[in-house]
Amino acid sequence: EKPVVVAEYLFKRLHEVGIRSIHGVPGDFNLVALDYIPKAGLKWVGSVNELNAAYAADGYARTGGISAVVTTFGVGELSAINGIAGAFSEHVPVVHIVGCPSTISQRNGMLLHHTLGNGDFNVFANMSSQISCVSARLNKPGEIADQIDYALRECWIRSRPVYLMLPTDMVEKKIEGARLDTPIDLTEPPNEPEREDYVVDVVLRYLHEAKSPVILVDACAVRHRVVQEVQGLVEKTQLPVFVTPMGKGAINESLPTYGGVYVGTGSKPGVAERVESADLVITIGAMKSDFNTAGFSYRTSQLKTIDLHSDHCTVRYSEYPRVAMRGVLQKLVQRVDVGKLNRPSSLEVVNEVAQNRDSSEIITQAFFWPRVGEYLKEDDIVVTETGTSNFGIWETKYPRGVTGVTQILWGSIGWSVGATQGAALAAEDMGTDRRTILFVGDGSFQLTAQEVTTMMRHNLRITIFLIYNEGFTIERYIHGMEAEYNDIVRWNYVDVPTAFGGTDKLVRKFVVKTKDELEKLLTDKEFNEAGGLQFTGNAGKWKTPHQQTKALSQESSLHPGDT
Amino acid sequence: EKPVVVAEYLFKRLHEVGIRSIHGVPGDFNLVALDYIPKAGLKWVGSVNELNAAYAADGYARTGGISAVVTTFGVGELSAINGIAGAFSEHVPVVHIVGCPSTISQRNGMLLHHTLGNGDFNVFANMSSQISCVSARLNKPGEIADQIDYALRECWIRSRPVYLMLPTDMVEKKIEGARLDTPIDLTEPPNEPEREDYVVDVVLRYLHEAKSPVILVDACAVRHRVVQEVQGLVEKTQLPVFVTPMGKGAINESLPTYGGVYVGTGSKPGVAERVESADLVITIGAMKSDFNTAGFSYRTSQLKTIDLHSDHCTVRYSEYPRVAMRGVLQKLVQRVDVGKLNRPSSLEVVNEVAQNRDSSEIITQAFFWPRVGEYLKEDDIVVTETGTSNFGIWETKYPRGVTGVTQILWGSIGWSVGATQGAALAAEDMGTDRRTILFVGDGSFQLTAQEVTTMMRHNLRITIFLIYNEGFTIERYIHGMEAEYNDIVRWNYVDVPTAFGGTDKLVRKFVVKTKDELEKLLTDKEFNEAGGLQFTGNAGKWKTPHQQTKALSQESSLHPGDT
Ligand SMILES: Cc1ncc(C[n+]2csc(CCOP(=O)(O)OP(=O)(O)O)c2C)c(N)n1
Ligand SMILES: Cc1ncc(C[n+]2csc(CCOP(=O)(O)OP(=O)(O)O)c2C)c(N)n1
Ligand SMILES: [Mg+2]
Ligand SMILES: [Mg+2]
Repeated sequence: EKPVVVAEYLFKRLHEVGIRSIHGVPGDFNLVALDYIPKAGLKWVGSVNELNAAYAADGYARTGGISAVVTTFGVGELSAINGIAGAFSEHVPVVHIVGCPSTISQRNGMLLHHTLGNGDFNVFANMSSQISCVSARLNKPGEIADQIDYALRECWIRSRPVYLMLPTDMVEKKIEGARLDTPIDLTEPPNEPEREDYVVDVVLRYLHEAKSPVILVDACAVRHRVVQEVQGLVEKTQLPVFVTPMGKGAINESLPTYGGVYVGTGSKPGVAERVESADLVITIGAMKSDFNTAGFSYRTSQLKTIDLHSDHCTVRYSEYPRVAMRGVLQKLVQRVDVGKLNRPSSLEVVNEVAQNRDSSEIITQAFFWPRVGEYLKEDDIVVTETGTSNFGIWETKYPRGVTGVTQILWGSIGWSVGATQGAALAAEDMGTDRRTILFVGDGSFQLTAQEVTTMMRHNLRITIFLIYNEGFTIERYIHGMEAEYNDIVRWNYVDVPTAFGGTDKLVRKFVVKTKDELEKLLTDKEFNEAGGLQFTGNAGKWKTPHQQTKALSQESSLHPGDT
Repeated sequence: EKPVVVAEYLFKRLHEVGIRSIHGVPGDFNLVALDYIPKAGLKWVGSVNELNAAYAADGYARTGGISAVVTTFGVGELSAINGIAGAFSEHVPVVHIVGCPSTISQRNGMLLHHTLGNGDFNVFANMSSQISCVSARLNKPGEIADQIDYALRECWIRSRPVYLMLPTDMVEKKIEGARLDTPIDLTEPPNEPEREDYVVDVVLRYLHEAKSPVILVDACAVRHRVVQEVQGLVEKTQLPVFVTPMGKGAINESLPTYGGVYVGTGSKPGVAERVESADLVITIGAMKSDFNTAGFSYRTSQLKTIDLHSDHCTVRYSEYPRVAMRGVLQKLVQRVDVGKLNRPSSLEVVNEVAQNRDSSEIITQAFFWPRVGEYLKEDDIVVTETGTSNFGIWETKYPRGVTGVTQILWGSIGWSVGATQGAALAAEDMGTDRRTILFVGDGSFQLTAQEVTTMMRHNLRITIFLIYNEGFTIERYIHGMEAEYNDIVRWNYVDVPTAFGGTDKLVRKFVVKTKDELEKLLTDKEFNEAGGLQFTGNAGKWKTPHQQTKALSQESSLHPGDT
């Protein structure tokens, strides 16, 4: 009835689920498909390489909801695979579309470029299927629309990457377009009501009985989109609420009941005591990974814990499979009897700037991170990289509405530079004027520095703080304090954007060496307005990571030590 | 008797097989192992990211024989996987060592960083096993020495990557070191003599009968190390000899019998006619891929063809499995009766500089590539990237001893920048003072530009010619001549090395816009001496790729067109 070309169908569906920009790198197996991107009202990002494209798509999905990246067969897709694996690990919905040789070439086992030379066209798809919740080969016109719709639905609902392999001879095949009139159903299947009610009752019983309950918000609360529900629960119950490193940003930190970052022995004084002395800890979307728990150093008891997850709940040792947290949280908000609650006071959380200001002019990590807390504004997007930044940021209190973007479980360095580009682009695509602010170590920056090019290509509103400490500091604290392998080449960092085509109009650059210079910069009106790209190379006593050192060494003791 | 630590054993073996530098990026799962690198007399390269490290290891093996790269679990190894896949596809022996969590953490399914969060520690090894000829998990001290020795032997003999997964708790386990006194046996198993003789007889019969036999040398002659044997055969028989694009550099191009590059319809005038009119074509190490044959455009008949391969031979339609070309070639050289041979004259190959010099001052591709042929010196290492360079270089006649380094089958752009670093480092490690010269497109350069850092870190003797044509020219000729997706951001290319820390002492930079400027540069004494890194940004009529356009459009017609 309404014939439509496969590529058009695909890109229109991507537009429909909320995507506005497509990341990726062209290659001869995807070129024709790319022609359909503008026709579907989408923008082509033009990434500098595929790994950066995947990282950027990850960042885009974290602020925009979902994202897509297009690569070419073999060389392109494998370059991106680490970025996609990160999205899988961290529950980020990314649609990976791979332009591949025609079904005919595949069937004939042709000796084509970008193959292993063995006629096997399934190797790369097999690899990707291990880090995708759906992996589909779009080989038969009659099935393609179904495959696409199913993949996009799963991508969204399971919040994980999907992989679509699009052969050149399918790109322009005509399929039925009438189904485009019906949007893909992205609603989560509801819990079975009786099961759900049962869990809600159990939770409420423990909650009403508890003397000192607390709430702990973690990664999957964000990734599975229950932040609103959590916020509702926290506001209604007025219970003390804490976040984990991976959950930071999920909760409005200016709430009086916000108590800070709980990370076992890596917590600030008072926090661990407060959480661990609670007689009930309700965790929401927990990911109790080594780095998220300072090396599994929680001293909480499962007998005092309720865990709400995206696909099951656990109350003490009772497990409730197939009960998703969203429905439970909604009913908890409705049914909790506030009058019955014991609401112990929370801890006060402030940016401890004065307390950490020493007499020297040199910027210390101890001083920097709280000071950043005063510089941040409501609704900022804050991206931090694996390395000292990911620990430092625990000392930064976020204003309301800040989105924290980190990759603590997967922890691939260089990710943040791509992710920042994607996060900022999504913010713009969604019609907001949020600032995106990146804190990245010099070592990590070097892996993916060219992504600054893409930031400038799209004139994004990004401010970069480069944490300049001449090497892999976080690793020095794990092993090899003086080892050559933890050294990096000393770049002229502020010259990097210029080399990448950044004129003075496109990028503003700063070198900040003293506390006074930092103060001046952070209070500068234009700097705060952040019109386009701003690049700040920081020099200071960055080699001493703040009190996190303690937590760090404990975490690390897991590895070389666990023999 | 002679206890030795696992890491020491491993690195000593790498040293023994000829490796002197180890590429890679540190990570907490490999740090302790890295301490043993200097102890084994090896150098740590300190790569800027893992993909570049893998590309560089590929380049190192191509000039040094074999190479190694160390990455960290998950994030590191997956970043490198495209580079390793390229080495697999193109038969390059690279040892990939991955530092991974302890066997205990793995057994307990710990929720560690760099995992997918699902307790599965085998996912990445499974992926890599598909692009490795051996994949071993070094989990049991008693088996590790065997596993290492077997992997290194296979790596060398099959000329393909191997994958070694080294858990943190095995790194310092003591194993028997006495076996280090016996070097690993790297000799290829000889052919069964009777089978081999049979094949040699058949080949000789056809060869002695043929009226106009020619030899065609291809990729696997280089990759499986029979270049010496081929050279012997060519010199003794004085038969016309041609190379494919992937075989270019395998043959001394100043031999009078050298006839040029045969690439089907993409050949220069006369070449295809000469090869296709031969009544016998002996191919050595053929890889008849699309790009290596201008889209399968050979007009040769299998009835007139003998194919010698690393693991089998084919004479017309008769197949001889398990007969490797080395032994056959050696016996052919011994037994060929030169008196019986018909030796037709070959074609004359010269660098057609004058013929391609037009009246304009602007540098054209047609002019550039032959001119490069006059600039090159004996024993140079010449690296070309996928894009117009890989086609242009067909017009360049190599002096004796030049090694051509290309990646035509896998064709991953950005590869050449890493490969150049590795190739140059290997040349230095082997105690030679060869120059390494790279021709790379502006688009490709952007993917992996930071590898220039490593070139400077090790002060390597590298000259880079950046082919500046504002985008993905080769792709424009395939599809989307004016499409936005074939545009790139205009970098200030010569500023890139400076931003990456290059002082004037470390790097010399040039911008060359006219034929005269090019002439001046190419004849400049210091430039020719190439003391360290030299970076040349070329501006010119690069948008018109020479006559290869024709071949290209044919090749490309394979893809979008093969519906
Ligand atoms: C892709 C990848 N390679 C290697 C690592 C191991 N790694 C973790 S942190 C780190 C150092 C980060 O250094 P930098 O960005 O300078 O941060 P700093 O700690 O110095 O502030 C490295 C190499 C990793 N996590 N990911
Ligand atoms: C990793 C990877 N991504 C994408 C491609 C597809 N591709 C092949 S050639 C090419 C363009 C190369 O442009 P450039 O280096 O500027 O060379 P030019 O043809 O312009 O001289 C691209 C994008 C590829 N081969 N490998
Ligand atoms: Mg650092
Ligand atoms: Mg170009």
